[in-house]
Amino acid sequence: METTVRTPDPQALTSDSAADTLGVSAARARSAVLEERILEDPGQFRVLTGDRPTGRLHLGHYFGTLHNRVRLQDLGVEMFVIIADYQVLTDRDVADDLTRHVEELVLDYLAVGVDPARGTIFTHSAVPALNQLLLPFLSLVSVAELERNPTVKDEIVHSRQAAISGLMFTYPVHQAADILFCKANLVPVGRDQLPHLELTRTVARRFNDRYGAGTAVFPRPDALLSSAPLLLGTDGTKMSKSRGNAITLAADADETARLIKGAKTDSERRITYDPAARPEVSSLLLLAALCQGRTPEQVASDIGSAGAAALKRTVTESVNEYLAPIRARRAEYARDRGFLHQVLRAGNERANAVADATLAEVRAAMNNRY
Amino acid sequence: METTVRTPDPQALTSDSAADTLGVSAARARSAVLEERILEDPGQFRVLTGDRPTGRLHLGHYFGTLHNRVRLQDLGVEMFVIIADYQVLTDRDVADDLTRHVEELVLDYLAVGVDPARGTIFTHSAVPALNQLLLPFLSLVSVAELERNPTVKDEIVHSRQAAISGLMFTYPVHQAADILFCKANLVPVGRDQLPHLELTRTVARRFNDRYGAGTAVFPRPDALLSSAPLLLGTDGTKMSKSRGNAITLAADADETARLIKGAKTDSERRITYDPAARPEVSSLLLLAALCQGRTPEQVASDIGSAGAAALKRTVTESVNEYLAPIRARRAEYARDRGFLHQVLRAGNERANAVADATLAEVRAAMNNRY
Repeated sequence: METTVRTPDPQALTSDSAADTLGVSAARARSAVLEERILEDPGQFRVLTGDRPTGRLHLGHYFGTLHNRVRLQDLGVEMFVIIADYQVLTDRDVADDLTRHVEELVLDYLAVGVDPARGTIFTHSAVPALNQLLLPFLSLVSVAELERNPTVKDEIVHSRQAAISGLMFTYPVHQAADILFCKANLVPVGRDQLPHLELTRTVARRFNDRYGAGTAVFPRPDALLSSAPLLLGTDGTKMSKSRGNAITLAADADETARLIKGAKTDSERRITYDPAARPEVSSLLLLAALCQGRTPEQVASDIGSAGAAALKRTVTESVNEYLAPIRARRAEYARDRGFLHQVLRAGNERANAVADATLAEVRAAMNNRY
Repeated sequence: METTVRTPDPQALTSDSAADTLGVSAARARSAVLEERILEDPGQFRVLTGDRPTGRLHLGHYFGTLHNRVRLQDLGVEMFVIIADYQVLTDRDVADDLTRHVEELVLDYLAVGVDPARGTIFTHSAVPALNQLLLPFLSLVSVAELERNPTVKDEIVHSRQAAISGLMFTYPVHQAADILFCKANLVPVGRDQLPHLELTRTVARRFNDRYGAGTAVFPRPDALLSSAPLLLGTDGTKMSKSRGNAITLAADADETARLIKGAKTDSERRITYDPAARPEVSSLLLLAALCQGRTPEQVASDIGSAGAAALKRTVTESVNEYLAPIRARRAEYARDRGFLHQVLRAGNERANAVADATLAEVRAAMNNRY
């Protein structure tokens, strides 16, 4: 793994100051422009992305984000993938089975094609200089701004805790530290995460204004809005491990078949793609289509009036065929836990080198040099 | 400087669980017990104390806390002295002249007798592993608890900022990290700081309960309530550098004489010690008494009916005589800025070794080992 700290030009993507007030549709337009720039010169981009280690990743994660990460990586964009082990505590008291969950996450990453030789997979708790950034960043954000954050509001509603913790409350500021420690200038997000990224951009701007003395210490990262369609779980609700309605990457072919066989559909024999009127059937069609690299309409037309059972057979075959090489790689990596920890150690070492360099710049800008 | 991490027994002083609900008078009684234990076995105590680097220290600081620190140090208690450079940002936007303020603080410490060979003087921003503790600790504290903290409420009222920053809001949790990173079990405080320390004790208890698996990772530190009487500034209000009513340790004899000459008194010729009815005259008597090692009543009786001018002459002589050796040492140290930075580098190195060891224990307890 490369240990030099290569840093994209912080100014590269921040010339458009109106971007600060972008709404979702504008963010979408901006993302289209960014996609073109990525194709032109992927080396000017650094991406921060990641997951909380709460269980095995499923097809919703795969087609929602993992697939896109590997795409960006393969285009030549540098990836930092954070395993947010402290963030597990934002909505539950104790992080059970943390070591195993982290290992499963690394397995999933390697299986889908995240390449630790080209990117950096690291754990939050292993990078003190990253975490230290929380303190200066907290001084740049008001309590009122934290209270207004809609994502935090929403997460508070769905929290498993009786009271809102200080960690949950300050979550968008941690996220700013996660993104800015490596000077990522591109963050793949769903639209619900736009407010978080807006706060990261605000923190970067305020830090630069207050301490930068004319130079930009931090980039103001751009959101790369996901165009991934929403996959429903087999019960027709949001796909989620805790609801038992998700097909994990690690599941075997039989378990996959059983889950899809039990999926909710409707009684109409003729299979059509109509997400509004027939959400469950349409989500299954979409899943098969994503696996086949075709449109859901094409898949529907293949099945015609053969009914839900035929649809489920098609979906099962498509998913199992698509996941077969991923699952084979996963099983192979799973035989060597030592390698997983080696990947993490190398990633953490690299993340620490990057974070130490950034913290040194931050200390210099803030006159914390004695 | 010793680099081994010697840690007091976390259980040593936490058997009294009722201490969690102590009021001020009970805290005073507890402090008396602690003072006896310190005399018996000073080696079982580790103290965390410190200051924000906002300017030169004055006689209020000296008789309020500095004198007591040196006393504890000389009794054989191990001292960690934090220069809280990030905390400067809790009530102002930019930390001006930070390097100079930090140097002045170290100068004041060395001048009054804080011994860097026996204790650890360090800066907050130099110890990432200490700062990282903020994240797990924030997960142990609710937003409601932070909102209730009376010291934060009060500091918010007196803040120089328009809005309350996230740093100010989470201040008691940073303080918990400052105290617990070195497993300090004794914290000298004024009564206004008791609620902060209460939160530190809560954080320690919750961490041990949740992650300790039967062992106490952190001590629950005791407050050592200061018995120092309150010195007023020369204008009769609270002594504070920003009000221009404070005699700094660094001031020379002439400046001291000028400040005391301009001090507010009253028109009664007969000098008596009566803090309620004659606060300004009594504060001056107290200051002279502290410098002379006598009682204010004795000083008053010496002066008799010679009036305010005689009182001021006595105070000026007493202060200048008392501070003369401190000022001489200060001037000597000030000639060697290189030595100041050497003290800080050694202190920061030691603080990092201690913080790294504690963070390793915290990661082990939380299963952040990959």
